Amino acid sequence: MKVLMALGGNALLQRGQPLEADLQLKNVNHAAKVIKTIAKHHQIVLCHGNGPQVGLLALMANAYKDVAPYPLDVLVAETQGMIGYMLQNALYNEGITNVVTLLTQVLVDTKDPAFATPTKPIGPVYDKETALKLAHDKGWEIAPDGKYYRRVVPSPAPKDIVEFKAAQKLIDDGYLVIFCGGGGIPVVEEEKSGFLIGKEAVIDKDRASALAAQELKMDMFVILTDVDAIYVDWGTKNQKAIKAISPTELRKMDFARGSMGPKVEAACHFVQQTNKTAVIGDLFQGEGLFNGTSGTLVKNDVKGIIYY
Amino acid sequence: MKVLMALGGNALLQRGQPLEADLQLKNVNHAAKVIKTIAKHHQIVLCHGNGPQVGLLALMANAYKDVAPYPLDVLVAETQGMIGYMLQNALYNEGITNVVTLLTQVLVDTKDPAFATPTKPIGPVYDKETALKLAHDKGWEIAPDGKYYRRVVPSPAPKDIVEFKAAQKLIDDGYLVIFCGGGGIPVVEEEKSGFLIGKEAVIDKDRASALAAQELKMDMFVILTDVDAIYVDWGTKNQKAIKAISPTELRKMDFARGSMGPKVEAACHFVQQTNKTAVIGDLFQGEGLFNGTSGTLVKNDVKGIIYY
Repeated sequence: MKVLMALGGNALLQRGQPLEADLQLKNVNHAAKVIKTIAKHHQIVLCHGNGPQVGLLALMANAYKDVAPYPLDVLVAETQGMIGYMLQNALYNEGITNVVTLLTQVLVDTKDPAFATPTKPIGPVYDKETALKLAHDKGWEIAPDGKYYRRVVPSPAPKDIVEFKAAQKLIDDGYLVIFCGGGGIPVVEEEKSGFLIGKEAVIDKDRASALAAQELKMDMFVILTDVDAIYVDWGTKNQKAIKAISPTELRKMDFARGSMGPKVEAACHFVQQTNKTAVIGDLFQGEGLFNGTSGTLVKNDVKGIIYY
Repeated sequence: MKVLMALGGNALLQRGQPLEADLQLKNVNHAAKVIKTIAKHHQIVLCHGNGPQVGLLALMANAYKDVAPYPLDVLVAETQGMIGYMLQNALYNEGITNVVTLLTQVLVDTKDPAFATPTKPIGPVYDKETALKLAHDKGWEIAPDGKYYRRVVPSPAPKDIVEFKAAQKLIDDGYLVIFCGGGGIPVVEEEKSGFLIGKEAVIDKDRASALAAQELKMDMFVILTDVDAIYVDWGTKNQKAIKAISPTELRKMDFARGSMGPKVEAACHFVQQTNKTAVIGDLFQGEGLFNGTSGTLVKNDVKGIIYY
């Protein structure tokens, strides 16, 4: 089966972990071991998040005073290099030697309302007081993220993936392609010239991954996060893990805007557009995500809600 | 003809220019217009330098105190993202829509003596006093670069290109591939495990490009710099531009270690290994590099030295 796996930031850096290179390397090596077990049975395309990393590069660029901070589209491109390399290297060392990373530009709409309302958290977490001070000093928008606060930036909807044909070519030839890193480098198409122009934004990697899974005609779309399934009544003593559900049922529920919400939306979008299946779950459950013992399966023909 | 073009740092940032993103973007757009005229007649593989950029990222990482500076191999990967994106975007906007950037790891030898003797200049130029202070404060090695000083890092010899088969695939399919950026991400092969491990170094992009041109069976290898040809008696009133020369003759001459030396060595290496042709010249001479009106042609069967 051809499977697009969208790797959450937590596989690279757990929430609240400092943004150290050696820690990321350790986490990536751990993730690569699990990906290897899955790659034995399926052909994988790998997308990944970049929230903590793109925020870190922005902080570094801000800290150095001799050069103006680089725009966010360039920083996203840098994270595709950074994270792509770490993943590619780790997978190679697990024996997956036909792994490549393709830089990816993703088209967004100039008129996307997201440009006026930043929602995507990037960089490290701060306590409220520090976050308010940074917002004031640097002109950031900030928003709560769990019990912390983070910087937020515009996150426009992905419309098209510029390099998808090259990815298709390499997939057809058996490569494990790392693609659409950090949701892709956001570009808009200039009306008269047709030029692609970089924009200061970070596209949600789950939405970009759903589009990639669709354009690349994947059989299955797996969204990986730090919980093992979608839960109803999450965080209460009544919480129940969903084993299988249709997108229609799933869309009736409410989920946190910043975390499970976009994943649920991306999974539903893929399934309804393609009539194929999506799974939301924890990478470290490995093959369990494919044999029904872990994760939430999203599929059009599921009746009602099936719980674990 | 299949041509590998190695784009010097000067096409991205001229010597002494500040490392601003918008300046790079302007330079890259200018370069893309010339590359387009060449791409009409030849299939191009594009390699590029990253000296100024990887040095800048190191400075930014140093300036931010909350996280330990990222290792050079990761920073090289980031520059492949940054510069690859800028080139890819600019070429797309010139109508070359089948352009892709492949992240590239390049194998070097753990025992390479270069690790003990840093020679590769990175980052901005400094006056002597500032450079000496930085060397003291940050533990850098520094060396003269023209009338300025710069930080220098180890620059081991490239032995093999990890992702060359994927590049070959895309080239065969007609893509303009941006490859081996910044000389490639330096990795060594661990003796027992065979694991590829990142090393703190920056590989010379001309040497890596020569290897890429050879492995990818290119017909021609073009090294682009900010002079229009190789000169004898450079910088004197007797200076003469060489039109054509054999590698054997060329190797008898002496060139500056930090600038023309590695380019001459890379060109000679490619020509002697493949019996094909190399050209050293100025990108902005465009088609002149291919019709004998500009640049220095390096070819095995040239007798003596032919001057302009």
